[in-house]
Amino acid sequence: MPRLSIHPSRAFQAYQIFAANTNVGKTVFATGLCRAAAVVASSKKTNPQVFYGKPVQTGYPVDSDERHVKTFNPSSLQTQTLYAYPDPVSPHIATAEPPSDAQVMEKTKQYMLDCVKKSRDSGGYLFLETAGGIHSPVMSGTSQADFYRGLRLPSVLVGDGQLGGISTTLSSFESLHIRGYDIPSLLLFNHDRYKNHELLSTRLHDQKIDITNVPPPPSPNPDPIQDKAAMAKYYEQLDEYLVPMMERLDLHHQERFDRLESMADKARDVHWWPFTQHNLVKEVTVVDSAHQDHFVTYAKTPDNSNAVEAKEMFDSCASWWTQGLGHGNAKLTLAAANAAGRYGHVMFPECTNEPSLALAEKILERDTWASRVFVSDNGSTAMEVALKMAMRTAGKRYGWLDQQRPVDILGVDGSYHGDTIGTMDACSPNVYNEQVQWYQPRGHWLQPPSVHISQGKTYVQVPKEMGEAKQVFYDSVSTVYSVDQDNRDPALTDVYKQYIRKELDGLRQQGRHIGAVLMEPVLMGAGGMIFVDPLFQRTLVDVIRQEGKDLLGYKEQSSTASSSSWQGIPVIFDEVFTGWYRLGRPSASDFLGVKPDIAAYAKTLTGGLLPLALTVTKESIFDTFVSDNKPDCLLHGHSYTAHPMGSAVAKESIEILDTMATDGTWTPYQEPWKQQDGGNTWSMWNWNTVQQLSHLPNVDSVMSLGSVLAVNLKDDQTKGYGSAVSASVIQQLRHGDHTDASGTSINLFARPLGNVIYLMTSQITTPADVQECERILLSSLTGTNSA
Amino acid sequence: MPRLSIHPSRAFQAYQIFAANTNVGKTVFATGLCRAAAVVASSKKTNPQVFYGKPVQTGYPVDSDERHVKTFNPSSLQTQTLYAYPDPVSPHIATAEPPSDAQVMEKTKQYMLDCVKKSRDSGGYLFLETAGGIHSPVMSGTSQADFYRGLRLPSVLVGDGQLGGISTTLSSFESLHIRGYDIPSLLLFNHDRYKNHELLSTRLHDQKIDITNVPPPPSPNPDPIQDKAAMAKYYEQLDEYLVPMMERLDLHHQERFDRLESMADKARDVHWWPFTQHNLVKEVTVVDSAHQDHFVTYAKTPDNSNAVEAKEMFDSCASWWTQGLGHGNAKLTLAAANAAGRYGHVMFPECTNEPSLALAEKILERDTWASRVFVSDNGSTAMEVALKMAMRTAGKRYGWLDQQRPVDILGVDGSYHGDTIGTMDACSPNVYNEQVQWYQPRGHWLQPPSVHISQGKTYVQVPKEMGEAKQVFYDSVSTVYSVDQDNRDPALTDVYKQYIRKELDGLRQQGRHIGAVLMEPVLMGAGGMIFVDPLFQRTLVDVIRQEGKDLLGYKEQSSTASSSSWQGIPVIFDEVFTGWYRLGRPSASDFLGVKPDIAAYAKTLTGGLLPLALTVTKESIFDTFVSDNKPDCLLHGHSYTAHPMGSAVAKESIEILDTMATDGTWTPYQEPWKQQDGGNTWSMWNWNTVQQLSHLPNVDSVMSLGSVLAVNLKDDQTKGYGSAVSASVIQQLRHGDHTDASGTSINLFARPLGNVIYLMTSQITTPADVQECERILLSSLTGTNSA
Repeated sequence: MPRLSIHPSRAFQAYQIFAANTNVGKTVFATGLCRAAAVVASSKKTNPQVFYGKPVQTGYPVDSDERHVKTFNPSSLQTQTLYAYPDPVSPHIATAEPPSDAQVMEKTKQYMLDCVKKSRDSGGYLFLETAGGIHSPVMSGTSQADFYRGLRLPSVLVGDGQLGGISTTLSSFESLHIRGYDIPSLLLFNHDRYKNHELLSTRLHDQKIDITNVPPPPSPNPDPIQDKAAMAKYYEQLDEYLVPMMERLDLHHQERFDRLESMADKARDVHWWPFTQHNLVKEVTVVDSAHQDHFVTYAKTPDNSNAVEAKEMFDSCASWWTQGLGHGNAKLTLAAANAAGRYGHVMFPECTNEPSLALAEKILERDTWASRVFVSDNGSTAMEVALKMAMRTAGKRYGWLDQQRPVDILGVDGSYHGDTIGTMDACSPNVYNEQVQWYQPRGHWLQPPSVHISQGKTYVQVPKEMGEAKQVFYDSVSTVYSVDQDNRDPALTDVYKQYIRKELDGLRQQGRHIGAVLMEPVLMGAGGMIFVDPLFQRTLVDVIRQEGKDLLGYKEQSSTASSSSWQGIPVIFDEVFTGWYRLGRPSASDFLGVKPDIAAYAKTLTGGLLPLALTVTKESIFDTFVSDNKPDCLLHGHSYTAHPMGSAVAKESIEILDTMATDGTWTPYQEPWKQQDGGNTWSMWNWNTVQQLSHLPNVDSVMSLGSVLAVNLKDDQTKGYGSAVSASVIQQLRHGDHTDASGTSINLFARPLGNVIYLMTSQITTPADVQECERILLSSLTGTNSA
Repeated sequence: MPRLSIHPSRAFQAYQIFAANTNVGKTVFATGLCRAAAVVASSKKTNPQVFYGKPVQTGYPVDSDERHVKTFNPSSLQTQTLYAYPDPVSPHIATAEPPSDAQVMEKTKQYMLDCVKKSRDSGGYLFLETAGGIHSPVMSGTSQADFYRGLRLPSVLVGDGQLGGISTTLSSFESLHIRGYDIPSLLLFNHDRYKNHELLSTRLHDQKIDITNVPPPPSPNPDPIQDKAAMAKYYEQLDEYLVPMMERLDLHHQERFDRLESMADKARDVHWWPFTQHNLVKEVTVVDSAHQDHFVTYAKTPDNSNAVEAKEMFDSCASWWTQGLGHGNAKLTLAAANAAGRYGHVMFPECTNEPSLALAEKILERDTWASRVFVSDNGSTAMEVALKMAMRTAGKRYGWLDQQRPVDILGVDGSYHGDTIGTMDACSPNVYNEQVQWYQPRGHWLQPPSVHISQGKTYVQVPKEMGEAKQVFYDSVSTVYSVDQDNRDPALTDVYKQYIRKELDGLRQQGRHIGAVLMEPVLMGAGGMIFVDPLFQRTLVDVIRQEGKDLLGYKEQSSTASSSSWQGIPVIFDEVFTGWYRLGRPSASDFLGVKPDIAAYAKTLTGGLLPLALTVTKESIFDTFVSDNKPDCLLHGHSYTAHPMGSAVAKESIEILDTMATDGTWTPYQEPWKQQDGGNTWSMWNWNTVQQLSHLPNVDSVMSLGSVLAVNLKDDQTKGYGSAVSASVIQQLRHGDHTDASGTSINLFARPLGNVIYLMTSQITTPADVQECERILLSSLTGTNSA
């Protein structure tokens, strides 16, 4: 099936007609725009077709915008009304049982696809007329500005020329603008007295909007024949304004595509992408916009011309694991903009502001084990802060602060804590960090056992460092993650304990100073989506707290020990990736049944909108830094620390997620797992699909929790980052030209981690989208065509 | 003079009445609110007074909202109309020569102050009625929503109950919301058919707005007596709705003050402030909002009760040097929100998006010496990236990459490059970084000569390490900063050259590998506002490039040398603080007359709104990381790399600044410097004030460039961070209860840097505000009362 896209192409222009209010002339302008498009079309070689669509019409058939548009347009105009109701009120009142938003959108998209198909050879112009003002409801109550956002068509805004119209026009513009719409053109009826267009031109000057002020239509004539004649004459007059306006709009459209065609090459010339070998970049993805889980990208057409075409891509790496609440989320935008408007950024040290304080309170409401919140900008800085907190605290208790011996951390091999030098030093050496001149491993790293599903069976892989390498099988995934309830596996717990004790004893013999115990609870992401056995991490924390001090041979200085609430060595949970429901529970620590002394949060903390990171800790650690001597304080800070925008968005995001966790949103995902896996562990990814994947011949093992699905591919050559087996699968996911049921092309924006393919949803992904992703993944892995 | 504030207090409530459109009942509701306030007031012990103000009235005296309000209110209501025009149109049309925005605001504030004074004992309610819709012009065209933002009064929004009113009401709400207004209450006239309040309740549910839907007023009666009687009756009916609504609003106000009173203590309990010794925090500043250069803070009243009162503070540390375009800048908010709405955050590696690409292009348009832009989150990460870039590049050219010998940097003593471990390692040891366990100085640092003004004379202090400590005098500040034009001082240049050569030779003898030369051009901020002699930094770059390789004894590997465009050692300019007009020129490198090989930008890059940082460099450095081997790439990235919001705001901010640099905005500052200092060097701080400060007995020296004014206080005890002499001056600046001409209290939110007091404006600070700051600074330094 050939690819089709509802998104504009160079040949197919589509515009949404929005209005600042009801009764400001939307239909008159729609009529004029269709006429003008026909004129402009006739000047083109291919003579593009002109379409007019009215998704929702009330007051029908007495009122019919479609009929009016048709009456005053050439017969070549193709029109359609999708839903019509007799009552001349808002649709949410006009119909008691409205179709769902999804149904209306599906029908709208189908109509657009029809237009695209019909005009495939000629090109076309489509005008989609909304009803009422921009925030008037579509059907059951959703605002049109929100509803049509998934299409994000370039929009013509019909302004209001009457008294008060400056205000409603500007407000409407802003409501569209903050939803990411392009508004190339503003149309309004002139009023000789108010001259709203003049002030609107000044106010909107920086927005580069083409403003067209036209004479108002004649007053209605009670005689229908005379009225029609007067209107026909008026439309001829209107052509003088709207044909040149349409030519400018056409030019704007062509310039937009000139830009889209050039962006990939320009990006190659000017960007220095993070963590990217530029020589290995096959294709640059131009993300023109994003909505919920989907990117609208523009990529070169296969014909090797310079032309680009739109392709929707499912953001299946959740934009580097940041997405919780989807792209273009209007609630988060409003929360961000409100904080920006109220504060911008304001000084934080020795100060407070409502969003920052409210966020700290919200965090501590949940993290009842903690009492202090430190704010920085990203996961790396949050972890640098955590390290500074822990190492000073441990050193003070055990009397190392003035000793020259270096302080180390105890970590888990394969972990990743960030890209700043300090966080790199906290990770074991690998092919990556050894490339960095100032990298020096400052720690000791334990070998972790990991959780896998292979051939339908769930097992823990115990590493050889624990005596013998072996696989321990369990009857379900949930059993493995039931660490908290009772002693899951006493024998294995003993194996872990012996291993940890032996390692600590070794450190003692070397006289090492261990200032922090670090781990990514449950899942080590960047290290290769390694699901660490939670029993191991729980045992590690237990041993550190109960026996760590003695095993390591440390002596407390009497002055600090009494008031402390941490034991052994400060334990840091790096929850940058795993926090905030990423794995189906509020925190990954919920799987371990223990809380850390210090936790780091970032990524989905802000719902996937902007950078902010937290380091949360206990009073006993905070107290280490409190004295009457200024330089004793925690020497870390960034200029935008606790910026109100990020703080407000984080709080909003947490509240939304907490609501979703209890309102049944995730029940469709939880139920199949409960039934088939038998416990409380669940994933957005279907249990059956996970099983199916685990049986594929090229798959070594699979694991899935919450929104994460990881597939370890078999690789006879290299394991880890150097692996090449994933390249062809990624290529297939990204560019396999998959199409959905409606014939719309859809692909997955996935990224490999060595021999691991992972897919990750946001927290708002629909069951239908997950199924679609599963279908594409299965077909890409089995080499079958999913189209 | 006793302090007065126009901002609400617990006893004085003030509300702005905004409307979604013209003619939706603002005056009727204003009338009803005044009546309801009178009822609520009568139930209180102090019987608070009720005020009504109409700043701008058109159609006067035929129309007079004040008259209507008065007619239907008890005689105790105090009312005022500030400006009135006969023409019943928008004020921008009604008057050909409107008063300026500043004049209207001044008069409005004066009116509010009068109300505050009159009701000092009783407390009061003030309702300020706007005209038309929220974006209708005040006078000459400024939107009311923008104009009244400085007051940020809690707002009552009058919605529209008619068809289309859902849309205009929601849009108006959003336009106010993104400007940071609190909107506790929405009022509208019921329409039996449309029932707009129902859908508005659903849509605004999360915003916690109290919605009151009331019967519409009777139709106008042509008989004035009957009309009045009907209206009187209507208002009695309205009381049934608005009195309870006013009680809820009153409760909302009390709860707001409960919160404001508790925030300082809560902040002390939950925040862990960056770089702050909590034990030394005397007072927590609760920043309730900010506008342009001003914070509105709430602090405890001196009576030792729990009560708080509003105090405006000038943000004289520019919120940790981030402010370029002021707080609550609507243009930046809109740019941020547009990007949030269009993208949220989207994947960046191997991708591009319009805001990120446009920003990179904008940067390279200016930084023509560079060709690549790397994006991260803050100054520290930008510098970590710069270090990684430089050290690998130098190592590759000189064949160190596989050698075990550590790589060092060459820096300037007293410099500061960030708080992550890597950037700390690039700074010389001091009382602060030595407290951090993993800190290890990895470099060699040169002693810098510095620029001072003392007793009216400008001189360069040459350090003793250059042979002999001495002061070299110049006839003006501009002369010192004319490094680029010709050889400013050949003799001193020779002194610098000899010193640098000797140091490099010493490094050669030790066999040191220098991987980068780092400097903060012109001004070392965090190190104590040290104005480094630009001639020294220029000479350093010249020597490094012309002789560095040979002096250090490095040999090029033939494979890399030919294509390179950098010489000697890669030079990094840390422009995190000094970039983007901070010092009056686009870049601090403009004073040095040389460009770096790598530059780091952050802070004002985003106009003072949200975190984003750039590391900009040359193709020859980028090329070092390009190969067919993935791990050769630059191993650095943060999740929100190149987030669209930050990128869009940065581009907008640069464009605004570039415009200001040419449109004469800064002429009032530049002219006095040109006249009195005689060159192109200038500051927002007046030349005469700088001279005056330099003569004060407790001042050692002063320096000023661009928006920065630094005052070195004499300190017999300790120099640097440990100094205590600044504490009393800071206390005086912050809490000296200064008042401006109108009697409004104003203080400076300043922070010390050891014995240095600095004040910093944004790039939009008005000459009047600078004068005010100078007056307060002088009085605080001389111990005179400025009130």
